[in-house]
Amino acid sequence: VAEAAASRSRRVPSPALTAIVLAGGSGTRFWPLSRRHRPKQFLALEGERTLLQSTVDRLSPLIAAPDLWISTTVDLAAEALRQLPEVPAEQTALEPAGRNTAPAIGWAVRSLPAERRRGVVVVLPADHRVADPPAFRRALEAAIEAVRAEDLVVTLGVVPRWAETGYGYLKLGAELGGHRGVELRRVSRFVEKPDRKAAQRYHRSGAYLWNAGIFVFRGATLLRHLKRLEPALAQGIEAMAREPGRVGELYPGLPSISIDHAVMERLRRIGTVPLDCGWSDLGSWAALSEVLPHDPAGNATMGDGIAVDAERNLIFSDPASAGPTAVLGVRDLVVVRTADAVLVAPKARSQEVRRLLAELESRGRRDVL
Amino acid sequence: VAEAAASRSRRVPSPALTAIVLAGGSGTRFWPLSRRHRPKQFLALEGERTLLQSTVDRLSPLIAAPDLWISTTVDLAAEALRQLPEVPAEQTALEPAGRNTAPAIGWAVRSLPAERRRGVVVVLPADHRVADPPAFRRALEAAIEAVRAEDLVVTLGVVPRWAETGYGYLKLGAELGGHRGVELRRVSRFVEKPDRKAAQRYHRSGAYLWNAGIFVFRGATLLRHLKRLEPALAQGIEAMAREPGRVGELYPGLPSISIDHAVMERLRRIGTVPLDCGWSDLGSWAALSEVLPHDPAGNATMGDGIAVDAERNLIFSDPASAGPTAVLGVRDLVVVRTADAVLVAPKARSQEVRRLLAELESRGRRDVL
Repeated sequence: VAEAAASRSRRVPSPALTAIVLAGGSGTRFWPLSRRHRPKQFLALEGERTLLQSTVDRLSPLIAAPDLWISTTVDLAAEALRQLPEVPAEQTALEPAGRNTAPAIGWAVRSLPAERRRGVVVVLPADHRVADPPAFRRALEAAIEAVRAEDLVVTLGVVPRWAETGYGYLKLGAELGGHRGVELRRVSRFVEKPDRKAAQRYHRSGAYLWNAGIFVFRGATLLRHLKRLEPALAQGIEAMAREPGRVGELYPGLPSISIDHAVMERLRRIGTVPLDCGWSDLGSWAALSEVLPHDPAGNATMGDGIAVDAERNLIFSDPASAGPTAVLGVRDLVVVRTADAVLVAPKARSQEVRRLLAELESRGRRDVL
Repeated sequence: VAEAAASRSRRVPSPALTAIVLAGGSGTRFWPLSRRHRPKQFLALEGERTLLQSTVDRLSPLIAAPDLWISTTVDLAAEALRQLPEVPAEQTALEPAGRNTAPAIGWAVRSLPAERRRGVVVVLPADHRVADPPAFRRALEAAIEAVRAEDLVVTLGVVPRWAETGYGYLKLGAELGGHRGVELRRVSRFVEKPDRKAAQRYHRSGAYLWNAGIFVFRGATLLRHLKRLEPALAQGIEAMAREPGRVGELYPGLPSISIDHAVMERLRRIGTVPLDCGWSDLGSWAALSEVLPHDPAGNATMGDGIAVDAERNLIFSDPASAGPTAVLGVRDLVVVRTADAVLVAPKARSQEVRRLLAELESRGRRDVL
């Protein structure tokens, strides 16, 4: 292990570049495909590769396995490593239990070897979709160059394609320059999820980006901001770094706060690179159906599905389930089938699947949660 | 076998009473639960007993296994006998392939032992539902007594509970008397499935009954009518009776005609006993959902199903499929799940399931038909 660490430290380029993939989430929005022990990042929603694998595939030409760290929970680590055989098990930052993004990111950055902490770190969720990976990498590269040049914190902000009410927004400020023809702007304000009218205004104005939760910074800079802005959290993280045997005991005591609230929204100066790459956070079955290929009647089908005189449905049939999933004469539904469950809901209400899970839980059906 | 036949013929009461259960149908309306080799009569739609078994259960206090004959196809006979272990294998009348009701009934009646042909025969479909079996038996008993008394053909006609357009109707004629307080009326006319307005008129008038396809007659009388009204069919049946080895060759050449068109509608004098017993022919998933118990929101659930904020759906989950079938926020749907298929359709269109089957056939999916 010492030797491996030495060899790793030898080949770290100067300046170091590291990506931390956040794979500790526990969403239930893709029930019945997602379960407690099989959250969204582990699902193959569009074919063979899981969202986690696609996230790593997308980074690889720019940041490959030797420079990739996985932040996840103790429970989910084995599956994450199984899906990413190219990533060494040492390159994981483990949370004893899922907290929020500030503890996860702070702890993952602090867990990096010192020379990587001094270098540039990219932090990104493991469960997003990108239609155009080269465009994604161009924006990411520009953000990395900006951080190298100016020691700024930079976030990638998605150019809105509609008036979404489910995302937070970044309000664009002054130009900060740019790199290789990619714009770099100051973020003048972080905006919480807006109502319909505000979202329409933001979309029309061209002055807002979607907050995608993708950040680039020098590791040491992030830790310095954390120490200044959230000293209790920073102290907890330092205590764990000093006594790794006490992580299981200390981690659950860390403040549960998002990286946005803890740091990003409170920075005087933060940059953003506009990202126009067919990004989606795939927040629901309906969001997935938007990005899948459609038949002429607007039905998106994954797996063994058949639609007759039906329009704009998502038919998702897990390969583990035998035989066809057939819809006749219905519209705008989500029909999902796994080996051990079926879900039928209107697309417009597919984000309410947690109500169903609450009902299943109340009936003692943890076997299917 | 000769001894068994002799013992059977010894214990036939005089006058003999025989029921022929028509179990050769090949409907596809309950796909995906029904399949080519598992038609509706073999399904347990309401619990443990299949429709065929329930038909026999319902008759038993009046006509039990020793007096029961099963008319079915060569392909379906094994399953029919498996479901009815109390019925001896000799008591089957086999069709080499399904034709129509006139050949099936004519051949089954002709196949009965001679003393049973001279007696009273009840013919009834194996795939109907009756909510009130004692009421059914009272009407049937009255019909049997009428046939014994007058050598009439008598049909049981269902008192309409709504303006159904999916059934044929019987127009009531003069009183013919009655037995034990049950009315016996002449049928003045057989009426094809009406349009909506006519159905409403029939329903309001009180002068019409639904044609349920349940008939009572002396076997010899039916064969005599058949000889007079459909001589080609009657000759074919006699040829098969003379040369049982040629049934496979001759049967497919019989005219494919319903017993209504061949005989019943052409009889000068035919009686009917009104039947008010919660009868349904269960012609579709929607018809089934009408008769199943409902939750307060009108959802009928069979098997492992769960409905949240959903109204008037049928959720039918075959015990062979694992885990829950969950609906959220939908209305008036049929959601059916078996181990190897799922169907989602509006209740109002559940009778169009054959369109889906045509599409599956055209895609080469006979594995699920």
